[in-house]
Amino acid sequence: MTDTPLENEPADYVPAKIWSPKNNYGGTFGSINRPDSGARFEQALPVGKHPLQLYSQGTPNGQKITILLEELLAAGHEGAEYDAWLIDIFKGDQFGSGFVEINPNSKIPALVDHSADPVLRVFESGSIMFYLAEKFGAFLPTDLRGRTETMNWLMWQMGTAPFVGGGLGHFYAYAPLKIEYAIDRYAMEVKRQLHVLDTHLARHEFLAGDDYTIADMAVWPWHPGSLYGVYNTHEFVAVEEYQHLLRWYKAIGERPAVKRGRVVNRLSDTPGEFLRERHDRRDFATLDEFG
Amino acid sequence: MTDTPLENEPADYVPAKIWSPKNNYGGTFGSINRPDSGARFEQALPVGKHPLQLYSQGTPNGQKITILLEELLAAGHEGAEYDAWLIDIFKGDQFGSGFVEINPNSKIPALVDHSADPVLRVFESGSIMFYLAEKFGAFLPTDLRGRTETMNWLMWQMGTAPFVGGGLGHFYAYAPLKIEYAIDRYAMEVKRQLHVLDTHLARHEFLAGDDYTIADMAVWPWHPGSLYGVYNTHEFVAVEEYQHLLRWYKAIGERPAVKRGRVVNRLSDTPGEFLRERHDRRDFATLDEFG
Repeated sequence: MTDTPLENEPADYVPAKIWSPKNNYGGTFGSINRPDSGARFEQALPVGKHPLQLYSQGTPNGQKITILLEELLAAGHEGAEYDAWLIDIFKGDQFGSGFVEINPNSKIPALVDHSADPVLRVFESGSIMFYLAEKFGAFLPTDLRGRTETMNWLMWQMGTAPFVGGGLGHFYAYAPLKIEYAIDRYAMEVKRQLHVLDTHLARHEFLAGDDYTIADMAVWPWHPGSLYGVYNTHEFVAVEEYQHLLRWYKAIGERPAVKRGRVVNRLSDTPGEFLRERHDRRDFATLDEFG
Repeated sequence: MTDTPLENEPADYVPAKIWSPKNNYGGTFGSINRPDSGARFEQALPVGKHPLQLYSQGTPNGQKITILLEELLAAGHEGAEYDAWLIDIFKGDQFGSGFVEINPNSKIPALVDHSADPVLRVFESGSIMFYLAEKFGAFLPTDLRGRTETMNWLMWQMGTAPFVGGGLGHFYAYAPLKIEYAIDRYAMEVKRQLHVLDTHLARHEFLAGDDYTIADMAVWPWHPGSLYGVYNTHEFVAVEEYQHLLRWYKAIGERPAVKRGRVVNRLSDTPGEFLRERHDRRDFATLDEFG
């Protein structure tokens, strides 16, 4: 540790008694965030041919679900065929009336199961993973010990990601100004999380033990996936220090279903790189990686 | 919205290529946080007479579990009798070797079920709630629709609390300096979350619909419980705007089991206010509220 003072500690600030929004935040999502919820415009959601309709974007939370769906299909669960529609969160699609109806929280991913009558809505990535794992009896162990460890790490993932994305990712990559205190706060926490995983994976092949489960699929796109990807913080937090985590990350990344799942609902300027939508397993053949 | 510039926008800052910790963060937990994990000292955990051993503190996450356990007992599930031991997180008890063994993430609450052989560890408040709800077949609907909505909102709670506590709570109440941008960011998000709940509870008695579930018990200590309590942000975010949420909050707060659960594992200078530990249902009779 060094004794250097914070480089840009701001002058003291006294918050108002009651907070009110300002219009000059800037940064990514600065113009789209609001202190309220609900539909901002009328927009029905498209419905495809499969029972499972996914409305998502291929962010880390989006990838969790498409990886699981591709793993289910690879394991022979034909009922997991799905249509994956792009909800462009940078354009505000998540505030359309149809989307808000299935997720009042206006966050991707959201799923509708048309095999239920009336149709069933599932939102929050952790809830969708649990729903699909129970529906198909896969990737969630049935023995109490394996099941409990899976849920321990799935819930760990749900509670830690906001520090990786909304915390370090935001202040390092998205915020309109670099605030040393905030970046330090979240870098320390993210490194702590990486160390927790690294220590655990030094003694276990997968998070829940011997079985590959929804906990692995939930953590993989975030720790360390998101550090390499959208937030570009992998060097900053020195991901290469965590060799056991990287062993696990690489092994899972080589699974064909994971390779498919991670390219769905993503935008790209490079033709043949990602799938904007996915409606059929043959869609992947249009990509350079699978063609 | 107003056009006022941020009052203390700090001068621009360029992060180092690789982050390293400093030792001058200050603020609550500033001296206890580290970028790694694992046991810092040897300390075995005490074990009481009941099958369920809870190691916790009565923070919002801790209250979730003691509320659920008291609700289970009130509903006649005798097997839910428990010992609740205080893990004083301000003193660093969460870094003792015994605690780290049951939760490598060093966060309260953690539970050990001695009725399993070998004993079973459960960590992350959401996982503990799910575990107990399944174990006793209570407060998690068995019909697919109610079960799914319960998991939707339970997962919503897991993913939103870091913005309430680690976000607004930290920057408003705990950080050693007040940073307007960070306070604004999290105040906006917390108000958005309150509005999501308020809108939903305008049309539903409970989060999952007609049934009181673990989703309600998970959200209650945070939205708006923590705003009144530990972070004292209820005026700042104008909680009184959310009347449907407050209707629900008050109704749940009047349940005898909730009144008991919320006072467990809490420190106080006022004798008769809280229970530091809970080992028997008669312990509550020592408090002024129940005596």
